[in-house]
Amino acid sequence: MFDPQVLSSVIITLKNARTVFIAAHIQPDGDCVGSQLALAEALQLLGKRTVLSLDDKIPENLNFLKGVKEIAPREPNGEDVFVYVDGSDSKRYGKALNRASSGTRPVILIDHHVTNEPFGDLNLVDTAAASTAEIVFDLIRALQVQRTPSIAQALLTGIITDTMGFRTTATTPATLEKGTALVRDGASIPQIIDQVYNRRSYAFLRVLGYAISHSKLERHILWSAIDYKTLQDLGVNNGTSGVVTQLLSVADARIAFFLTEKQDGHIDLSLRSRADVDISGVATRLGGGGHKQAAGALLPPPFETAAQRVLDAIQQEYKP
Amino acid sequence: MFDPQVLSSVIITLKNARTVFIAAHIQPDGDCVGSQLALAEALQLLGKRTVLSLDDKIPENLNFLKGVKEIAPREPNGEDVFVYVDGSDSKRYGKALNRASSGTRPVILIDHHVTNEPFGDLNLVDTAAASTAEIVFDLIRALQVQRTPSIAQALLTGIITDTMGFRTTATTPATLEKGTALVRDGASIPQIIDQVYNRRSYAFLRVLGYAISHSKLERHILWSAIDYKTLQDLGVNNGTSGVVTQLLSVADARIAFFLTEKQDGHIDLSLRSRADVDISGVATRLGGGGHKQAAGALLPPPFETAAQRVLDAIQQEYKP
Repeated sequence: MFDPQVLSSVIITLKNARTVFIAAHIQPDGDCVGSQLALAEALQLLGKRTVLSLDDKIPENLNFLKGVKEIAPREPNGEDVFVYVDGSDSKRYGKALNRASSGTRPVILIDHHVTNEPFGDLNLVDTAAASTAEIVFDLIRALQVQRTPSIAQALLTGIITDTMGFRTTATTPATLEKGTALVRDGASIPQIIDQVYNRRSYAFLRVLGYAISHSKLERHILWSAIDYKTLQDLGVNNGTSGVVTQLLSVADARIAFFLTEKQDGHIDLSLRSRADVDISGVATRLGGGGHKQAAGALLPPPFETAAQRVLDAIQQEYKP
Repeated sequence: MFDPQVLSSVIITLKNARTVFIAAHIQPDGDCVGSQLALAEALQLLGKRTVLSLDDKIPENLNFLKGVKEIAPREPNGEDVFVYVDGSDSKRYGKALNRASSGTRPVILIDHHVTNEPFGDLNLVDTAAASTAEIVFDLIRALQVQRTPSIAQALLTGIITDTMGFRTTATTPATLEKGTALVRDGASIPQIIDQVYNRRSYAFLRVLGYAISHSKLERHILWSAIDYKTLQDLGVNNGTSGVVTQLLSVADARIAFFLTEKQDGHIDLSLRSRADVDISGVATRLGGGGHKQAAGALLPPPFETAAQRVLDAIQQEYKP
């Protein structure tokens, strides 16, 4: 839970502001964009002018959210307050975080990451929350703004994307209660699922087909790899993150990994494991990092030996 | 909503019974088995003896539910009350529904299907409920039984499987509220998802890979087909129902279908469509049936022309 005194200070700071700069982090996801849009609309309903910044490209599957066109890469420019949502450290905001131009004006950080670096003057942080949207939900309630259907939809998009639809172990009864309240306010889970998850490109589906068809299952490890030329032939440059999840859906698989070769010859590794297997040590051993059940690394060439290097690292980690 | 007077009568009937026969329907799913087990445990806590019947094989992915081994194909045999859960008509219970042997003893039907045939003496039916488990939730509360973690897990399994994890349009705020209460009682969404959905066979995954790799996208119709010999080579006899859902996850696809050739030469058709396309007429035209967004049919041989027959039926239905 965040500090209630911090919440009071954030409320006073925002209520006193005429203009509020709100930034979401680079490599944006549904939680940062949804939190940003919901907070902006709530502040607009209180008569504030908002400036929305994101120093990166917004994923196409979030274009259905109201107000998404107002977001653009922007630097702070004399606004009264600067709010940063869902970013665990100051490096994740690109040019949107420029303390020099904010001068003495207050910086508010709203975040839920365990690895949070509290770089704000006011840090509204709850590491027990499954999403930043849940903290923004509390903030909007404390601001006494009635949630419109579009505020509700933006917040629920944040909750659903960060919890994979209430499915992660971080999902609490409070998460579900907020989800219920947002549906009552007019948000639609089927619409969010349809827009966010069921708008994949046909090229992505063909990468999935290729990955499955070329997969190998050895000692409860299910893995696959795709080289850069094949990715190019299939028309995919990025967005293969759903593949490894599909591999781990097989009963016999306790660890799954997927390798994609990049243009410069380096290889992206995505690692996933069942709840009773901690994969983070394998990623660290390979120069990467991440969580217990989801981790990754960037491996040096050559592509041909990459899978064996990962299999060796798994074996070293579990049979020392 | 069901009739509150029916609920009162059901409560009195169950409280007066010493032995209760509870049957789930054939081609069982998580909702019927979860509802059956939750009601049985609640009645056992009230000191009743329960006899659990299911005239079919229980899917392996439900084996994690407590008490599942107590379920077997059984005929009514002198119990005081006979309860049938989640079946829309009397034909869906096989030999578990034998009115002759129940004689004058009361038959209770608990169901949520719109197409419900009220064959019970007492029909506790709510067609607005997204799952039968939600009605059993109300019944257990009315019986004043405290939900144990295993009752909660069985009910939440019913809710999650029938709503695809709160994702269907039938999911109401009441559904989400019950889900929240069940998590508070000790049920685990991650465990249910892991057990029910992430225990696919590697053979199934290879069928998915084959289907995707051989799929075609034409005029917003994404389809694929697999012949009997290939299915045999991949080691799959049944359970290809997840394939068509994956096909429909592509942005350009408004209709998806998947054909699987059976041993006798007939072809199973699975049809799916986006929310704004009603596919049920296509299935009817091909001798099948179903819902607006999910329908199916059994097509006669030959396999080679089956896809074209479906494509023609779609064209006839939408461009008459």
